[in-house]
Amino acid sequence: MIETLSRIGEFGLIERIDRLLKKEGVPGSGLTLGLGDDCAAIRPRPGADLLVTCDAFVEGRHYLPERISSFDLGRRAMTANISDIGAMGGWPLYALVSLGLKAETPVGDIEELYRGFLFELNPLGAAVIGGNLTKSETPFIDITLIGEVEPADMVRRSTAKAGDVILVTGWPGQAAAGLGLVLAAPADADLDSEPLVGYYRTPGHRVREGRAIGRSHLATAMIDTSDGLLGDLGHICQDSRVGAELFMEKLPVSAELRSAAKRLGKDPYELLLADSDDYELIVACRPEHVEGIEQVVAEVGQAPSAVIGRLTDELGIRLKWPDGRITQTEAVGWDHFKANKVKS
Amino acid sequence: MIETLSRIGEFGLIERIDRLLKKEGVPGSGLTLGLGDDCAAIRPRPGADLLVTCDAFVEGRHYLPERISSFDLGRRAMTANISDIGAMGGWPLYALVSLGLKAETPVGDIEELYRGFLFELNPLGAAVIGGNLTKSETPFIDITLIGEVEPADMVRRSTAKAGDVILVTGWPGQAAAGLGLVLAAPADADLDSEPLVGYYRTPGHRVREGRAIGRSHLATAMIDTSDGLLGDLGHICQDSRVGAELFMEKLPVSAELRSAAKRLGKDPYELLLADSDDYELIVACRPEHVEGIEQVVAEVGQAPSAVIGRLTDELGIRLKWPDGRITQTEAVGWDHFKANKVKS
Repeated sequence: MIETLSRIGEFGLIERIDRLLKKEGVPGSGLTLGLGDDCAAIRPRPGADLLVTCDAFVEGRHYLPERISSFDLGRRAMTANISDIGAMGGWPLYALVSLGLKAETPVGDIEELYRGFLFELNPLGAAVIGGNLTKSETPFIDITLIGEVEPADMVRRSTAKAGDVILVTGWPGQAAAGLGLVLAAPADADLDSEPLVGYYRTPGHRVREGRAIGRSHLATAMIDTSDGLLGDLGHICQDSRVGAELFMEKLPVSAELRSAAKRLGKDPYELLLADSDDYELIVACRPEHVEGIEQVVAEVGQAPSAVIGRLTDELGIRLKWPDGRITQTEAVGWDHFKANKVKS
Repeated sequence: MIETLSRIGEFGLIERIDRLLKKEGVPGSGLTLGLGDDCAAIRPRPGADLLVTCDAFVEGRHYLPERISSFDLGRRAMTANISDIGAMGGWPLYALVSLGLKAETPVGDIEELYRGFLFELNPLGAAVIGGNLTKSETPFIDITLIGEVEPADMVRRSTAKAGDVILVTGWPGQAAAGLGLVLAAPADADLDSEPLVGYYRTPGHRVREGRAIGRSHLATAMIDTSDGLLGDLGHICQDSRVGAELFMEKLPVSAELRSAAKRLGKDPYELLLADSDDYELIVACRPEHVEGIEQVVAEVGQAPSAVIGRLTDELGIRLKWPDGRITQTEAVGWDHFKANKVKS
């Protein structure tokens, strides 16, 4: 018989999670009081600012439970939050996890979800320090992540200037293509050998790159691509009051993305620019610092970084094609109340 | 035509909330970067520890939208979180609000919800500094509240001793009775003149009392009654490895609670001990400090405090009746996956 939440109850589940975290998690540094009181208590490191972000994953909206394992879902949800801390040049320290769950959920699934959280947090030395559990007909995972940053190293989205170069890390759009492949396949298809499906299930974050860029003081602005590359570039443009030109031939379209787009009958540029579905970094810097940024990114990880455009005085985002054509585009990103597909 | 979320979209809603917070909220102290980036940034006050808590309210589970206004719901959800900070002796500073919303929700309802948050936060000098918005078939409000406390003033739940006296603030159970009256009345009944319904809709918190108790260094343990008086006393007992005796004739049963219980065909003690549904404080202290605690509570607010029992070496919670009878009880509190009624 499967052990469900309704059998062990809220406090039974809290005990189980508590045990799992103590055994499989890392102890939070600077934590004076963790799980098991009305609040968690933190002793901030003198001189550091704290960064706080939260991001929710709602079943049917951000994920389809039959298409992703609990472990991968935990990784994905935590990655989204880690990415936000990284995009400010910070480092994650403490997570609070608030879950809305169905009573009939197997306890083992919740444990796997937490193992997914820890898989992402442990290597960073970050810990789950609290949270909330409640019943909900529509399950959700809502994570608040607290990180730290040296005040001088913090990178905002509103401080870019016209003339800055735009770089992007990694391979945006590959996760979106992976999601497309998942949705196009029969529910019982084995997609483990599809590399882009792996990108979708566990897209990774760039917190090491983000912190290194922050410490280098070479970036003028930074943001992650969680609302889509164009959408988030749009946030930089709006908040910094600049426009942008993208060099289409410079966009990092991989052979896998091109092939998946073909199979899906989609434009690879749409997957890359509009859907993204991953947690890459968009970085703006003065032209003389491009090499410095590229070097910093290369030093801390395997992700490539590519120059994809430049910021302009003229507002709006324009796409420059190899044949000289220029098309105007809206900063189309993800909007939770207007869009309808599954978004992760 | 009613303006809905699907009409103005996520970023339209963010703008509206942003404007409302700037106009009607207070600026957060120590905030170096608020709404409008990947994270909010905080500069902690040197020497203070930070307290972090989160609590979620799920539609149909914690509230029935047709029985509570958006404004009162906002107050209630924020109160639950403020209460957790107060129960540690702390003071709230920053709230992150994560909402799951239906696309057809009127924007005006969300604004009222935020006004409810601000109604509770503004007098404390606390600010909404960030959050998340997403679509969900089951709406939810998930709040993370960050507060501060001088390390020496923090009051935990695990540090009580046998022989300590148990006090409780205010009138626990009145909110539960109010909820009972709401659920028993026709949906269109005007319950505004029912005082206990007011207790249910906006039960209030004891953060001023909690901080004053923390600063007095007179309490050995403290917790709020959000899981029910018996349930939360049970948390103190379990974590401090003690038992408790409650003096039934000392429980603060008001005339209103007695009368409402009669109308509902319920035992007033059950409403007071098991349901509670409010955010009073349970305080443990050495017998010689009872007067000191009572004085501290009287100085900062209007809430009474009552001695209701004592902690014992013998484990378990026993009820002592005026006729000398003693009944053993389980620490029955709220359990989200076992219970089925609406819980607020």
